[in-house]
Amino acid sequence: MARIAVLGAGSWGTALAVHLARLDHEVRLWSRDPDRGRDLEAKRENRIYLPGFGFPPRIRVMWELERATGGAEAIVLAVPSLALGATVEKALGGGTEGGTWVIATKGLEESTNRRMSEVFAAVHDRPPVVLAGPSLAVEVAAARPTTVLAASVDAHRAAAVQQLVHGPAFRVYTSTDVVGVELGTSLKNVVALAAGIVDGMELGANARGALLTRGLAEITRLGVALGARRETFQGLAGVGDLVTTCSSPLSRNRSLGEAIGRGLGVRQAIAGLRQVAEGVPTTRSAVRLAARAGVEMPIAEQVRRLLDEEIEPLEAVRALMSRPPRGEGEE
Amino acid sequence: MARIAVLGAGSWGTALAVHLARLDHEVRLWSRDPDRGRDLEAKRENRIYLPGFGFPPRIRVMWELERATGGAEAIVLAVPSLALGATVEKALGGGTEGGTWVIATKGLEESTNRRMSEVFAAVHDRPPVVLAGPSLAVEVAAARPTTVLAASVDAHRAAAVQQLVHGPAFRVYTSTDVVGVELGTSLKNVVALAAGIVDGMELGANARGALLTRGLAEITRLGVALGARRETFQGLAGVGDLVTTCSSPLSRNRSLGEAIGRGLGVRQAIAGLRQVAEGVPTTRSAVRLAARAGVEMPIAEQVRRLLDEEIEPLEAVRALMSRPPRGEGEE
Repeated sequence: MARIAVLGAGSWGTALAVHLARLDHEVRLWSRDPDRGRDLEAKRENRIYLPGFGFPPRIRVMWELERATGGAEAIVLAVPSLALGATVEKALGGGTEGGTWVIATKGLEESTNRRMSEVFAAVHDRPPVVLAGPSLAVEVAAARPTTVLAASVDAHRAAAVQQLVHGPAFRVYTSTDVVGVELGTSLKNVVALAAGIVDGMELGANARGALLTRGLAEITRLGVALGARRETFQGLAGVGDLVTTCSSPLSRNRSLGEAIGRGLGVRQAIAGLRQVAEGVPTTRSAVRLAARAGVEMPIAEQVRRLLDEEIEPLEAVRALMSRPPRGEGEE
Repeated sequence: MARIAVLGAGSWGTALAVHLARLDHEVRLWSRDPDRGRDLEAKRENRIYLPGFGFPPRIRVMWELERATGGAEAIVLAVPSLALGATVEKALGGGTEGGTWVIATKGLEESTNRRMSEVFAAVHDRPPVVLAGPSLAVEVAAARPTTVLAASVDAHRAAAVQQLVHGPAFRVYTSTDVVGVELGTSLKNVVALAAGIVDGMELGANARGALLTRGLAEITRLGVALGARRETFQGLAGVGDLVTTCSSPLSRNRSLGEAIGRGLGVRQAIAGLRQVAEGVPTTRSAVRLAARAGVEMPIAEQVRRLLDEEIEPLEAVRALMSRPPRGEGEE
């Protein structure tokens, strides 16, 4: 059993803390906000982001960063993407030393299109381990069967994290393709948005299968152009995360797409969500990255046009269906 | 516009006939059974297998094989898999000559595990074109957006069929990987059965994503061992067909799995279906082919054990989740 710090008490950080405590690790769940931290400790439950899951005794809630990270064998980052760099800097400034850094935060940094491990590398030189894959927080908290990836350029660290977090209902595979795992699990939100649009327009299961396939093909193309391995997109960080996101009625990105597909204006659909749908900035990042890399991403481009209200959903579908016929794999 | 014979007036043959007639082809839809043929011609609708879609004027129903195939530029085989070889033999015996053969029949021959193009090759030496992909018949008939593959070892024939059948709502990609296209679209039914079991047990979206990913990985392994190209399984014949089948409440294989996952006995669940679920014989074929090729297929093996009532659903899940942790891609 190890001492593990989980930084960030949103739904994903809390679910990971619950999971790790069930494995008998000594978990320190850190909340940036002292008031929220005291409330979590008093209620022993995260009623805002993960209601219904009482904390096992092995979780201790903290709101002082050094106390949470001190002596931790692993430090799991589950803070919002915008706060990741600053949180690591603050922890390092406070004297945090040993321990493996685990990045559980998802997404791309909006202004720079950087992956989370790139943001991390700008403030610390130790290779982190990225923990990602098809893992809805509420299902992990409920101990439903889940599989994820522990990815690091340092295979030993990835294996160490695999040992720490693997459990009876939480199967962990290792990978050394950090770029692919981060890009797959971020870019899938572009396809989830598009899948939601297809669902909202009631285009059917044939269109859904085609959309996921061609969407996966174009995020694979971009990923490979940016240094990822093709196989990663066939695995849990690609197909797996995409299928889970598109299967879940809870996915904000899929739901936003569905509202747009039903004909609700984009601004109104976005305003209707209580939380941010990362797919929106991720679509813009994808289109920018694709242009820079000289990669064709027809689906992402149509989603971008829809989000910018340049076209209507039907025009987007027509544009995609009327591209010249060709061989599969050519583009 | 061309003259095209569609042999077999089940749901898929009828849907293809309706689609081709809408493209202004002169379609001859052949039913093996003269009484059924006369009934189809009288009603101008297939009320049993594809109700709700009146035949366009360009469809002519026939029940004499030579009349249907005579002078046809393309002959589309949409008969049941057990009848494919005999139908081709009979047509050839009746003097059918020119024309491109298109195989739209799916599945593996139960007793021999042969693909449909292998069955075809045993009776005719001209390379056929396989038409397959994520294409629920009712959606094709309803002109909902659909994408499929035209696959042939003869790229010119594949391109010719692409030209013939491509339409505004029916996008056709070509491929030369006949083995991969046939295996992907057949073996996906094993994974659809397993996905149904996961749904019936209410294991959640994380488990669904994992199952589809690992299921796709193992049918890819078997396909590659049998001569298919890996990329084909990332395309419409793999990911695409799998997602469409698993998204559809109409899929017999997924529904059968769901009944089993809910705890209904296998015999009872099978008896509850009015039509055959091809996933059952396909699972047995897959396990046999995998054993012969020396390929590990843990999911197919657990589905086989469930179908043979050797284990209960919960044991199958436990067996899959308790395999030793490893790297993604290793097996």
